[in-house]
Amino acid sequence: MISDIMKDYVSKSSIIRAMFEEGKKMASIYGEENVFDYSLGNPNVEPPENIKNSIVEILNSESPNLVHGYMSNSGYDDVRTKIAQNINQKYSLKLTEHNLIMACGAAGGLNIILKTLLNPGDEVVTFAPFFGEYENYAHNFNGKLVVVPSNTDTFEPDLNQLEAKINSKTKAVIINSPNNPTGIVYSEKLIKNLSELLDKKQHEFNTSIYLISDEPYREIVYDGVKVPYILNYYRNSIVGYSYSKSLSLPGERIGYVVCSSEADDFDNIMQALNVANRILGFVNAPSLFQRVIAKCLDAEVDVNIYKKNRDLLYGHLTKIGFSCVKPQGAFYLFPKSLIQDDVEFAKEAKKFNLLIVPGSAFKCPGHFRLSYCISYDKIEKSLESFDKLARKFI
Amino acid sequence: MISDIMKDYVSKSSIIRAMFEEGKKMASIYGEENVFDYSLGNPNVEPPENIKNSIVEILNSESPNLVHGYMSNSGYDDVRTKIAQNINQKYSLKLTEHNLIMACGAAGGLNIILKTLLNPGDEVVTFAPFFGEYENYAHNFNGKLVVVPSNTDTFEPDLNQLEAKINSKTKAVIINSPNNPTGIVYSEKLIKNLSELLDKKQHEFNTSIYLISDEPYREIVYDGVKVPYILNYYRNSIVGYSYSKSLSLPGERIGYVVCSSEADDFDNIMQALNVANRILGFVNAPSLFQRVIAKCLDAEVDVNIYKKNRDLLYGHLTKIGFSCVKPQGAFYLFPKSLIQDDVEFAKEAKKFNLLIVPGSAFKCPGHFRLSYCISYDKIEKSLESFDKLARKFI
Repeated sequence: MISDIMKDYVSKSSIIRAMFEEGKKMASIYGEENVFDYSLGNPNVEPPENIKNSIVEILNSESPNLVHGYMSNSGYDDVRTKIAQNINQKYSLKLTEHNLIMACGAAGGLNIILKTLLNPGDEVVTFAPFFGEYENYAHNFNGKLVVVPSNTDTFEPDLNQLEAKINSKTKAVIINSPNNPTGIVYSEKLIKNLSELLDKKQHEFNTSIYLISDEPYREIVYDGVKVPYILNYYRNSIVGYSYSKSLSLPGERIGYVVCSSEADDFDNIMQALNVANRILGFVNAPSLFQRVIAKCLDAEVDVNIYKKNRDLLYGHLTKIGFSCVKPQGAFYLFPKSLIQDDVEFAKEAKKFNLLIVPGSAFKCPGHFRLSYCISYDKIEKSLESFDKLARKFI
Repeated sequence: MISDIMKDYVSKSSIIRAMFEEGKKMASIYGEENVFDYSLGNPNVEPPENIKNSIVEILNSESPNLVHGYMSNSGYDDVRTKIAQNINQKYSLKLTEHNLIMACGAAGGLNIILKTLLNPGDEVVTFAPFFGEYENYAHNFNGKLVVVPSNTDTFEPDLNQLEAKINSKTKAVIINSPNNPTGIVYSEKLIKNLSELLDKKQHEFNTSIYLISDEPYREIVYDGVKVPYILNYYRNSIVGYSYSKSLSLPGERIGYVVCSSEADDFDNIMQALNVANRILGFVNAPSLFQRVIAKCLDAEVDVNIYKKNRDLLYGHLTKIGFSCVKPQGAFYLFPKSLIQDDVEFAKEAKKFNLLIVPGSAFKCPGHFRLSYCISYDKIEKSLESFDKLARKFI
């Protein structure tokens, strides 16, 4: 009696989320300390202390009906102003509150962006491997996700292949850097080339092609690498930002969408984002956390904890024979699986209490994803399991 | 460049939300104390003190990564268990956490319910006047909203007219009691008759017709009136509950969906609701407030404040010639406008700094809605404006 499309979704569901549930089950059987759950990108680094202090300060000083009440569907004006000023400072831009809509995390943000842009049948292009939800988000609005395979030696997007897939129905290109699941960061040169290509294609087809940057990992970078801000390179730029990882608040569903003032149809886009936030049922980003964020714009989590995890896990896995691109950001490794069938490989890993996600979930079979946002001790303890797993196949 | 459907939405947008923005503008011109904004259902009664205390207690005693982290898309198990027990106590049911999904308010709840149920072209029936968003929510999933007019003398749903509109494509009926915008509460007799009718129609068409109860106002009732709980009367029952009004937390987007264990396809429905929560971009209901709610299950706002407002405003308006059904719940009055053209009437009202919402926004022209969740003093001060408005037309 549920809808046909949901039958389909339920049967294939999210393999990542299924792993997460599986992990909870295994922990209850084997004891939590003996299960190595690398499945979900759930930050283990604590939120900055300033989050708690800000919550208490707000509760003690602001009217509860303001703090917990309705505001514009776009979010509080003062909060958006402060975030705009903060972005301006970091990336030399001239944004105001009119460029921003507070959103329920990047997932909420991407949905209101696609609701705003897509006519049925419109195409959204992204690069494999990619966060599997992009396909569902495009389908929510009767759009079609077009996937460009990447070079699996570097996971750099292949712009020639992208060019071949852009046509008059291409409404948007989604990028995600630092990337889930590979951890790579797109260079400035790549963003420049991508922008030039999209600009050329816009002229060729006389269309607007929006570049959507999904940025939950912007602040999680290592080795001093810089993440270019697309509004500085491309006119039709829209960013979906989330505080889920940058402040370790994934459960709170807080983020924003920012659109370049130079984007085609800018005024309508901002109005439509506002309406989409309302009619999709988000209504507004959670109110208390909007106000908390405004007080924590310069707060950050200790990225060094993730870096140590990366170094330990990357170092060990490559030492024992795994092949893997070294991530410069996010908290994922995306090694090649030791047999071609990555789903089978994940099953094998489970025998050693290792919960890993097959690359197929990211449309890149023959690989697997490890979320190393777990404790250093846990990673250390898990290395023996990886050794055993490797010995079985190498 | 925005999608065609969003062009349409942006142009007609929400008249209620437009009023809210207009109210802010007028307040900056005439001074807040001189604008009588009856437009938005934004509670003015403070949340119970227990909300603040619970937040502080949680922050001081629970791990921040648990409090602000991901959990199952359905929400925390322990929170759902506690809510289920609380519902069981109140309505003599036997629910468990498996009957519940934590949702981003009733708006989020209704969207995941309709995503779960609707195939393109499926029909959802509701009674006018109704919260205008129902139409948008049905359209989000390519469904069609079918509207049954009510008797405007009592605003009781007309079950004969309902019967005539049910066909083999009818997937759901949405009810909303206490009702926005009329404030009426559906009697037990009505719920029984409605249930019998739907049951008969299910047999006739060999279909499942789900009864969806949108319940943000369940706790806001006066004069000792009881609101029947539909799970006690109808097998295919799904409730979308929200704490927005019952605890004055509309900005926090916290509520839940509860489905009867006896509903057709129950297991798939619960799984699909979980998946829908994820893929529509809600991911999960905001985490801190899930935990807060679990500590405030018996908390309540002071409904007497709304009752005093109702008595003052209803008493005065009916005295000076307005015709209005006396509301037994929610915080709205829905009087007849003094001229047939309710949009024109709202414009006239604005000349006296009265912001009211035309009944057309609820598909019931010739009326207007007043949200009396504002301060008693403000209502008192506004009475003179209503007098002037009435004198113009009576």
